[in-house]
Amino acid sequence: MFGRIVPVTGPLDWLADAAASREQAGLTRELRPVSDDGVLDLAGNDYLGLRQHPAVVAGAVAAAQAYGGGAGASRLVTGTLDIHGELEAALARLVGGPAALVLSTGYAANLAVLGALTDRSTLIVSDAHAHASLIDGARLSRAEVAVARHNDVAHVAELLRGSRHDRRVVVVESVYSVLGDLAPLEELLDVVTAAGALLVVDEAHALGVVGNVGEGALASAGLTDWEHVVITGTLSKSFAAQGGFVIGLPSVVDQLVNTARPFIYDTGLAPAAAGAALGALTVLHDDPGLAKRVRSAGRMLSSACGVAAPAGAVMSVPMPGPREALAAVEAARSHGIRIGAFRPPSTPDGISRLRLTAHAHHTDDELARACAVLRELVSR
Amino acid sequence: MFGRIVPVTGPLDWLADAAASREQAGLTRELRPVSDDGVLDLAGNDYLGLRQHPAVVAGAVAAAQAYGGGAGASRLVTGTLDIHGELEAALARLVGGPAALVLSTGYAANLAVLGALTDRSTLIVSDAHAHASLIDGARLSRAEVAVARHNDVAHVAELLRGSRHDRRVVVVESVYSVLGDLAPLEELLDVVTAAGALLVVDEAHALGVVGNVGEGALASAGLTDWEHVVITGTLSKSFAAQGGFVIGLPSVVDQLVNTARPFIYDTGLAPAAAGAALGALTVLHDDPGLAKRVRSAGRMLSSACGVAAPAGAVMSVPMPGPREALAAVEAARSHGIRIGAFRPPSTPDGISRLRLTAHAHHTDDELARACAVLRELVSR
Repeated sequence: MFGRIVPVTGPLDWLADAAASREQAGLTRELRPVSDDGVLDLAGNDYLGLRQHPAVVAGAVAAAQAYGGGAGASRLVTGTLDIHGELEAALARLVGGPAALVLSTGYAANLAVLGALTDRSTLIVSDAHAHASLIDGARLSRAEVAVARHNDVAHVAELLRGSRHDRRVVVVESVYSVLGDLAPLEELLDVVTAAGALLVVDEAHALGVVGNVGEGALASAGLTDWEHVVITGTLSKSFAAQGGFVIGLPSVVDQLVNTARPFIYDTGLAPAAAGAALGALTVLHDDPGLAKRVRSAGRMLSSACGVAAPAGAVMSVPMPGPREALAAVEAARSHGIRIGAFRPPSTPDGISRLRLTAHAHHTDDELARACAVLRELVSR
Repeated sequence: MFGRIVPVTGPLDWLADAAASREQAGLTRELRPVSDDGVLDLAGNDYLGLRQHPAVVAGAVAAAQAYGGGAGASRLVTGTLDIHGELEAALARLVGGPAALVLSTGYAANLAVLGALTDRSTLIVSDAHAHASLIDGARLSRAEVAVARHNDVAHVAELLRGSRHDRRVVVVESVYSVLGDLAPLEELLDVVTAAGALLVVDEAHALGVVGNVGEGALASAGLTDWEHVVITGTLSKSFAAQGGFVIGLPSVVDQLVNTARPFIYDTGLAPAAAGAALGALTVLHDDPGLAKRVRSAGRMLSSACGVAAPAGAVMSVPMPGPREALAAVEAARSHGIRIGAFRPPSTPDGISRLRLTAHAHHTDDELARACAVLRELVSR
C-alpha cells in the first residue's frame, strides 16, 4: 500500500493556470528581441526617427563620459546633475512653459503629478481612454476618481458641476496612445477654467509631432494657461531616450520635488538618457520640419488603411479579434513591415486593433511600399 | 470708493500655502546640482564606486552606439533588445536565480511584482519600514494590505495565521533603505513556507554589497527557495546605472510580462543603462572583493559614528530633529564630507537621521579623514 498522497501546492502554482487561460484566449504575450533586419518599423514610438541619430547617440555618449553610468542617488540626495537642469530648461523652452521637472520615466511623471497635486478632498475626472499610468496615478492618489466618457466635454462639465470637492483635476491625453485621436483641449480648458479646476494633459504622443515645431497640442493651440494647466510627457518617444517630465508653474515643480513619492524615492534619470534627449531636442530645434514630416507620413499611411488621418503619429485600425490582429501583424512582417497589435487588456474598449505609427525618417519609397502592403492587408 | 475686491483663486493657489508650511517646519527640499568638487561622497548609493568606472562608461557608450538613445517602444511591442536579455541573464547568474526581467526603474519593478502576483483575494503583509515603492505597489494592487511591525517575525506569522485569504505575500527589504538593518530572512522564510505564502524581498541595498561576491542577502544565506521567493532590485545603486529587475521562477517572469502594468505600458530600459549595468556586473564578477571592501568601509564609518556595523552599505545616525540633521550635513560639508539627512516623511518612524553610505572605492586615507570628521560631529 502507498501512503496517502498529500497534494503539495506552492504559492506560485496558480501561475500555470493563469498562463493556460491566457493561451486559450489567444492573449499570450512574449518578448522577442527586435533585430535590425531591414524590416520597416511602423510599430515603435520613435516618431522622429532619432534613436540612432548621430546627435542623439553623441549626446548619450558624452553624458555617460561626463557623469558616469547613473545618477547614483535620488535627485534630492546627490543625484541632481547639471545635465538634468539643462534638459529641464530645454523641455520648458520647447513648450513655452515656466518650469520643468525630469523624472526617470513617463509612468513616474504621471504617478508623481496625480499624487502630489491631489488629496483626499480632490476629485479627479479622468478620460475613459487615459493611459495606464494616469489610471494608476489616480488610483494611487488619495483623491476620489470619476471616469468621464472618452472626449465627452459635457460629461466632464457635469462631473465637475456635481462635485463638492475642494479641488478638482481633469486628466486627459492630448493625443491618445491607442486610438491616436486628439482631445478637445480648447473646450476642456474652458470647462476647467470656469470650474476653477486644473487640467493635467499627458502630451506623450504629441510632443515632437504636433505643432509647427513639435511644441505639442496645448502650446500649438495657444492653450498653455499655466494657472490651470500642467503638462506631462515622456523622453522615450519623440525624444528618443528614456524618462518623463512635468511642465508647469514653478510652484508645481516645487510641490513635486517636496512631495511626489516617485520623484523623491527614485534615483535620478541616467545621464546618458538625459544626454540623448537633449540631443533629440537640439535636432528638432534645428530641423522643426520633422514634426510636419511625421504628420505627412501619417496621412499617407492612414489613407492606405482607410482610417482618418491621425492628429499625431498614432493610427488605429479596428480588427475583428485578437487572433485576426496577430495574423495581420504576421502578414505585414512577411512583407517586411512591422506593425503593432493592441489586444485586451491594452485597449480601452476591449476591441483588438492594429496600431501603426508614422515616422519622420521614412523615405517616400518606404512609405509607398508600406502603403501597398497595408492596402492589401486591410482589403482582405 | 473702491469696488468690492473679489478674491480670485486658481486651482494651484494652495501650493503657496503648502510651501510656506514646509518652510515653517524646516522641511523644504531643494534640488542642488552636485558638483565634482573633491568632496568625499558618503551620501550616494553608488556603493561599489563604479559610476565612473571605465568598464561601466564603456558599456553605456557601446550600447548607445549599437542600439541608439532609447528602446523606442514597450518591451512587448518593439522595445526588447538583445542587451536586455544579456542583462537579465547576468542578473539571474549573480543571484543564482532561474529567470530575470528588467524594468525601467526599481520603483517600477516593485509596483509590477506586487500588482501582478496578487489579486483581490490576496493578503499582502508588508514590513513597517518597507520602501515607498513597495508601499505604493501594495496600495496599487487590489490586495488587502496588513503592516507588520518592523522585523517582527512573530507578528508576520500572526498576521498570516489570522488570514483566510486565498494567497498571502510577505514583503520585506533584505537591507532596509533608511536604517540599513537586515531582515531576519531565514526566520521569515520558515514562517512563509509553513504558511504556503510567498516572500518578496527587495534586495536593492544588498546586491553588490552583501555576500561573498555581492550576490545579496538571500543567496548568500542559501535561502533562494524559488518556489517561495521573488527578488526585486535596482540597477541604480551597486550597478551604477538606472533600472530595476525581478528575479524568480520563469512563471513569475511570464506573469509579469503578461500582466504587470508598469512593464507593459512603459518603454523598455534605455540601452545605455543596460550597458552600464552589464559593465558593472562584469567588474564585480572579475573583482568580487568589492563587496567586502564596502562592508569593511562600513565598519570603520559606523564605529566612528558610534552606531552598529551595517549589514550592507547603509548606516543611520539618529538626530534630535530635522534642523539638527541639516546642520550636521552642513558641518560635514564644510569639512569636505558629503552625508545625507533623512527627514520626515522619508523616515519610517518620524525620526530625523543622518544617513551615511559606505563605498568600495574610498581609500584608507579618505576613510580616516571621514572618520575623524564624523567622530567630531557625533560627539558634539
